[in-house]
Amino acid sequence: MKPLEFWFEFASTYSYVAAMRIEELCREGGVELVWKPFMLGPIFALQGWNDSHFNLNERRGSYMWRDLERLTDKFGLPWRKPSRFPRPTSNPARVAAAFAREPWIGDFVRRVYVANFGEDREIDEPEVLATLLAECGRPATTVQAALADERRALLRANTERAIALGIFGAPNCVVGSELFWGEEALGDAIEWARR
Amino acid sequence: MKPLEFWFEFASTYSYVAAMRIEELCREGGVELVWKPFMLGPIFALQGWNDSHFNLNERRGSYMWRDLERLTDKFGLPWRKPSRFPRPTSNPARVAAAFAREPWIGDFVRRVYVANFGEDREIDEPEVLATLLAECGRPATTVQAALADERRALLRANTERAIALGIFGAPNCVVGSELFWGEEALGDAIEWARR
Repeated sequence: MKPLEFWFEFASTYSYVAAMRIEELCREGGVELVWKPFMLGPIFALQGWNDSHFNLNERRGSYMWRDLERLTDKFGLPWRKPSRFPRPTSNPARVAAAFAREPWIGDFVRRVYVANFGEDREIDEPEVLATLLAECGRPATTVQAALADERRALLRANTERAIALGIFGAPNCVVGSELFWGEEALGDAIEWARR
Repeated sequence: MKPLEFWFEFASTYSYVAAMRIEELCREGGVELVWKPFMLGPIFALQGWNDSHFNLNERRGSYMWRDLERLTDKFGLPWRKPSRFPRPTSNPARVAAAFAREPWIGDFVRRVYVANFGEDREIDEPEVLATLLAECGRPATTVQAALADERRALLRANTERAIALGIFGAPNCVVGSELFWGEEALGDAIEWARR
């Protein structure tokens, strides 16, 4: 059975809904999960965008905000429309990239997402991250360790790999050479991993 | 229980996958289905596009073509990548708008989609439409009846209504005041109609 790489961006609303569910779905399906944080900014720039397409395209954005209300209600997830969108997210992404294989990473990722989309908190601030890490039982030094120069390269490498994979948005699942985009594709991606 | 309006465009690949399944899904769910053909061109123009975004955005387009191979395989639907995309579709859309409430409309819509995406045929040509209508047991005069001036307004009115509904792509389901976009949202839309 092939592992499933979950490619996500902490600023992405649909990544939130997917990230809250992916670990349980993989466990139920018996599929190995690999967390892959990356940055959407450079990938949007490749498509000629200097902002989220949900801000650039009002019709598309209006739909997304209503859809998120429905989806978070459907899955019983906290929801408060963020006062800032998209939020800076490079620091939590660096933490996630640096500790992607740690057993507490899923817990951390979900706490960051709830802070962003359920509590409207500034998840890029190191104090906020230290609080969230403490809730995962990690020492405050974890933030500094992730932001050290030698670890920053991990997130950059992920983003470069995402570009090479043809990724254009978030979230995504990658199984072997197959890319599955969108929150709705989790089930198909898990089926593919089980083939 | 609220009826479900299925808003589709014959040039849209994801509308194909959804259109092939929607009638059966509604029947299974006990939901009344209303066929709503419209034109995406004016709606793309509102978003500043002079072509399908799958052509304008190469990363997005590459993904869609692979995704369609997977989805048509998953649902057992015919698939041949069309030699022309997007195809002109106003004539089949006029027929569907003119006869949207006829009992043969679902059969006709599916035959047009299979001709476009399973057989690479020019579905805007009246002779092709006459052949497809004959397969539905309809006389050849059906095309001319749909293209008459007094009936053309039906498709234009649908497109104007789609704009007013906030539609930005296809396919869509509209249930009451709720819009559900995308092939993956059919299940949620049917659940909404049953609430």
